[in-house]
Amino acid sequence: MKPSALSCTVALIFTAMIGQSAATAGNEPIQPITSAKVTNPALVELGKKLYFDPRLSKSGFISCNSCHNLSMGGTDNIKTSIGHHWQEGPINAPTVLNSSLNLAQFWDGRAADLQAQAGGPIANPGEMGFSHTLAVGMLQTIPGYVAEFKKAFGSDQIDIDKVTKAIAAFEETLVTPNSRFDQWLKGNKRAISKDELAGYQLFKKTGCIACHNGPAVGGNSFQKMGQVEAYKASSPAEGRFAVTGKEADRFNFKVPTLRNVEMTYPYFHDGAANTLTEAVDTMARIQLGKRFTPEENAKVVAFLKTLTGDQPAFRLPILPPSSDSTPRPTPFDRK
Amino acid sequence: MKPSALSCTVALIFTAMIGQSAATAGNEPIQPITSAKVTNPALVELGKKLYFDPRLSKSGFISCNSCHNLSMGGTDNIKTSIGHHWQEGPINAPTVLNSSLNLAQFWDGRAADLQAQAGGPIANPGEMGFSHTLAVGMLQTIPGYVAEFKKAFGSDQIDIDKVTKAIAAFEETLVTPNSRFDQWLKGNKRAISKDELAGYQLFKKTGCIACHNGPAVGGNSFQKMGQVEAYKASSPAEGRFAVTGKEADRFNFKVPTLRNVEMTYPYFHDGAANTLTEAVDTMARIQLGKRFTPEENAKVVAFLKTLTGDQPAFRLPILPPSSDSTPRPTPFDRK
Repeated sequence: MKPSALSCTVALIFTAMIGQSAATAGNEPIQPITSAKVTNPALVELGKKLYFDPRLSKSGFISCNSCHNLSMGGTDNIKTSIGHHWQEGPINAPTVLNSSLNLAQFWDGRAADLQAQAGGPIANPGEMGFSHTLAVGMLQTIPGYVAEFKKAFGSDQIDIDKVTKAIAAFEETLVTPNSRFDQWLKGNKRAISKDELAGYQLFKKTGCIACHNGPAVGGNSFQKMGQVEAYKASSPAEGRFAVTGKEADRFNFKVPTLRNVEMTYPYFHDGAANTLTEAVDTMARIQLGKRFTPEENAKVVAFLKTLTGDQPAFRLPILPPSSDSTPRPTPFDRK
Repeated sequence: MKPSALSCTVALIFTAMIGQSAATAGNEPIQPITSAKVTNPALVELGKKLYFDPRLSKSGFISCNSCHNLSMGGTDNIKTSIGHHWQEGPINAPTVLNSSLNLAQFWDGRAADLQAQAGGPIANPGEMGFSHTLAVGMLQTIPGYVAEFKKAFGSDQIDIDKVTKAIAAFEETLVTPNSRFDQWLKGNKRAISKDELAGYQLFKKTGCIACHNGPAVGGNSFQKMGQVEAYKASSPAEGRFAVTGKEADRFNFKVPTLRNVEMTYPYFHDGAANTLTEAVDTMARIQLGKRFTPEENAKVVAFLKTLTGDQPAFRLPILPPSSDSTPRPTPFDRK
């Protein structure tokens, strides 16, 4: 038994599933993405504005959308992100798309959910460089925001809990249903090509599915980066160890979703793999001890590209203007 | 006769107009904004994607929309913009909204039109820090873009002329009709309040209208910053002098549009005025040798806020993903 299978208890279950020949959505280890249900539209609209608002950063230049760009698969497509004063981030920005399906947030899972995550970058000196107190104080001076908070929460008193709740509510809508693979899962056998299907079969047979499964094709477990062969990361990140302090968790990272993976390059927590070809090759080698032929690799990559779903479709939000009493951003203040 | 009137030949014409008491759109010195007519929708869609695409910068982080943010009145709401590697820009980013109505582009008018402007920031080392050759080469490796250029231009050969033409075509759609003031101009006398109308009368009577007139309420002449009283700029910019080399053009800047001015703070080419109150006070003093009472100032500001029109309404564009051969951005490369 391979080390990867030993560490993934779920792998055994899926191995059993893979044995079935006539695939239907019901017994596949990947399930279709379902559309988001919006229960409080005012909250989602407010969250959308906050998500796009660079005034939540010290500089007035960096918004959530700067590094989790919804025009680009919910990422920045940069190896590691750019923070306040052009600081080089320590890790690759994970996609916000379908992030509501993750078991926890950040690569090391240090935030339990989207709301807990949303406050992080705002106050991180290496990211947006602001503070929760300053962000809330700023928002409270903007009449347009005060009115929207009142509409969403029934009160015009703003606090960081409401800010992050609104951002999380918007982020929960950022699911990407209707990929070609989901159409196939739902019974449209012509939605994917013969090669793409062959790639999916390889993806299951080789064992990728052991960790990349479920509706998000990942996001539901922590796994060691380098199960079979050590991974030489270009990032200092220690993964789950930083949260639990347990040696066994060193270099354990949240398995990323493979939904929209065609758009979320570069890959891995250190952004070291520029292409899907490279990422598939490395993963097979260091996680599963396998080597794909170029033809096999191409088929797996073709399958992965069928996971691109409907991207978020909404009007660019128009932000309420600052008032005379709104503190102005200080982008060039080094303190 | 005041120096401002001497230098603005148009002023005399408008002074005559101001004498009329029953204002109608026909004889007002400000005309309503008309909606944009799109003749080549494929070109506009392509231009919209390019406008939002940070891959046109060396870092992969800065797009046209970074400094001319369409969520924020087509500006960045920062005193002077942030460029590649967090460089501090020399001048305040003018709004892209209604910029097709300007007599020329940039504060000093060094670009004749939007197409000529669009190439500037891409190749400016202090802004997007890229080059036209690199930008075109990058686009040519992206199949989604190649297809869109073919659709818009009938050829899949990309060049910088086509890139800037597409961006300009999108920018031409960024007009903001239907402001409350335009509704008033068109005959809806209840569209603006008594105080707002009084502010407009003051705006004309005091002479602001001499330079801020036409559909864009500005943008149609160069004028000296500090006609009556010298202006102590916090920016080294020399204005039109940098283009013509004529001493008479020193500190002559393009008169900015006042459309959506409520959203385009801070004000002036050096971004020194944080509020409309401050901007109106300074302008009256240094351009016209007048001092508004606080009540007068408030009325003029109230009028200016009626110039906010319908903001651009479109879906956030989804950018075509890079291919394996697309050169990756190099944000932390200092060369």
